[in-house]
Amino acid sequence: MFAPVYLDWNATAPLEPAVREAMLPWLDSRFGNASSRHEYGRQARAAVDEARAQVAAAVGAHATEVIFTSGGTEANNLFVKGAAGLMKPGLIAISAIEHPCVREPAKQLRRADWTLREIAVDRAGLVKRTDWLAVLAAKPVLVSVMLANNETGVLQDVATLAREAKEVGAWFHTDAVQALGKIGVDFRALGVNAMTLSAHKVGGPLGAGALVVDKRLELAPLLAGGGQERGLRSGTENVAAIVGFGVACELAAARVSGENGRLCGLRDTLEAGLATHGMRIFSAGAPRLPNTVFFAADGVDGETLVARLDRAGFACASGSACSSANPEPSHTLMAMGVERETARGAVRVSLGRDTQERHVVDFLACLGQQMNELNNLTAVAVQ
Amino acid sequence: MFAPVYLDWNATAPLEPAVREAMLPWLDSRFGNASSRHEYGRQARAAVDEARAQVAAAVGAHATEVIFTSGGTEANNLFVKGAAGLMKPGLIAISAIEHPCVREPAKQLRRADWTLREIAVDRAGLVKRTDWLAVLAAKPVLVSVMLANNETGVLQDVATLAREAKEVGAWFHTDAVQALGKIGVDFRALGVNAMTLSAHKVGGPLGAGALVVDKRLELAPLLAGGGQERGLRSGTENVAAIVGFGVACELAAARVSGENGRLCGLRDTLEAGLATHGMRIFSAGAPRLPNTVFFAADGVDGETLVARLDRAGFACASGSACSSANPEPSHTLMAMGVERETARGAVRVSLGRDTQERHVVDFLACLGQQMNELNNLTAVAVQ
Repeated sequence: MFAPVYLDWNATAPLEPAVREAMLPWLDSRFGNASSRHEYGRQARAAVDEARAQVAAAVGAHATEVIFTSGGTEANNLFVKGAAGLMKPGLIAISAIEHPCVREPAKQLRRADWTLREIAVDRAGLVKRTDWLAVLAAKPVLVSVMLANNETGVLQDVATLAREAKEVGAWFHTDAVQALGKIGVDFRALGVNAMTLSAHKVGGPLGAGALVVDKRLELAPLLAGGGQERGLRSGTENVAAIVGFGVACELAAARVSGENGRLCGLRDTLEAGLATHGMRIFSAGAPRLPNTVFFAADGVDGETLVARLDRAGFACASGSACSSANPEPSHTLMAMGVERETARGAVRVSLGRDTQERHVVDFLACLGQQMNELNNLTAVAVQ
Repeated sequence: MFAPVYLDWNATAPLEPAVREAMLPWLDSRFGNASSRHEYGRQARAAVDEARAQVAAAVGAHATEVIFTSGGTEANNLFVKGAAGLMKPGLIAISAIEHPCVREPAKQLRRADWTLREIAVDRAGLVKRTDWLAVLAAKPVLVSVMLANNETGVLQDVATLAREAKEVGAWFHTDAVQALGKIGVDFRALGVNAMTLSAHKVGGPLGAGALVVDKRLELAPLLAGGGQERGLRSGTENVAAIVGFGVACELAAARVSGENGRLCGLRDTLEAGLATHGMRIFSAGAPRLPNTVFFAADGVDGETLVARLDRAGFACASGSACSSANPEPSHTLMAMGVERETARGAVRVSLGRDTQERHVVDFLACLGQQMNELNNLTAVAVQ
């Protein structure tokens, strides 16, 4: 089987072997419904409880604050619609670079008479102080600002934003999906009221995520029914996925500081090489995730370059994976004021636990070759 | 490991070995995000497409009509809230014996000025003709009646109900979660506008389900974001679970007629034995699933009996698993006019593919023994 070098860890990460091992019994003889009271059900319930404690411990929360969902998209929707569902319509403010699964539910609230305001970011992708103060003056009820951006990797000062938002009476949420496992994430230290996590970005399986939530915040369930997850998320618990999520969080928390240093080293190598190819690196001057590099070369189409790299054995992204069916340039780059043509050339490389120095070196060599070929094609075309 | 005989297949079913085999590569080297355009992503996309075709074929639908969700609860919520979300408030009618994941979202609609009406059932659990005609006269906009009840196994004449509902302009949905794999289920033959399926009830994994839906019915997404599933259900596709769902549907459709006959034979043995113990079988005279027997003995507490059976090596349910954290007697039995005290004694046995004649015979012997012990305890207590 053709297996390109995987450089798209922000889209999804392979299962950690220990996670897979922990999941397998729950796909075999331990198949009970966690709501059943017999032996099979009790085993499943105990496993879900243990995973809840693992996830909570990894992010400095209480187990009772963890609501399991089917993933990050559901958790973000649960915060936005669930919180709004029990409030009088008001102002919801989100950063201009949120993932669509925060932005789209926030747009849906406009049907229910809410006002949506996007908080501007500067050219580096950081929340603009002046716009933030203007938003606070408008007294938002709900605020959502992501901890780490999926495309640029830029890190917001969520602790400060959360403190200031709470001072004006807002409930503050952060989408920490891309931050988990790449930097330390602590629910209490961030001081947020709610936080979204996803298993598959951190070596856990697809199909599990969580909203970690301050219990003072009342939520209307998105999925109503049998009353699982304290009535906030009904549906038979996906035991295998939840077990895997717990183990993945535990592993990620244990490794994060060591991995952080290693990935920063690889990133430096990568960025030095990109500089020699004349690439522009987005958010280069801002605090960023250690694994993410979003770059572009003027005059090159990102889609074309990524397709060539793929055929040559390197899997990376031309935009955020979730919107790659969408031909529009990156919403994040547009919000940062990047020119449309430059944004069309954007390529995202995201590294992970299996990435080694030689992968980065080989990638740079391949990139140089592809760029030469593309430039030659252009040269021929303009003759 | 202590492994009781599993007689709770309506709560969840073990993974079919072929399903597990089909899933494993997607938990290993084939880990891509189906929205990614590189080799890993394209493999995942092809697998999701194949599974969609398998699910559609198993229920006589078009692949484009299948919206994958995280399970039956989400699919039921998507129909109820998604359809209502784009309509002017009106009347939603659901049968009085719907699963909570239809009933609770329907109740939530009352916040948005909808009127909820429950359609009465008779003592056998079938929709009462007179009440149904009264509901139709009130011009419902949305109707939901389950194909097979999870507790009694009673089968509604959904084809007739759907035809009549559509004649008055309603959109008709059926929750077919318990029917799939136990009786033939055909989307076109039923003539419904929408139908809910779940993987884990049919030998597939937890974490996958589907709303099969007539494309003329506009839905507001519950989970908004990256635009997966034609924009109707955002979130990274749970590839392994979806692959398993596809294979499980294919197997179930191929086996359903043979299994139906075999399970009816086992059920006859079971019910003959229950009769000798003086048990009352709910919905005995109505069309029912071949695998489900819901029964009670007057004066016995169902919870106590089920706990004793569990310790003695037989896993069955005292109510629907999803509400077994709830001490209230079965909502279904209450709607059927069963006396509260009788309903408290209810026990559900549901059979499946691994159930053999000897399991049923052993279960009956154990049940007799437990009943004797309980009667002796009662006799001692009243001396």
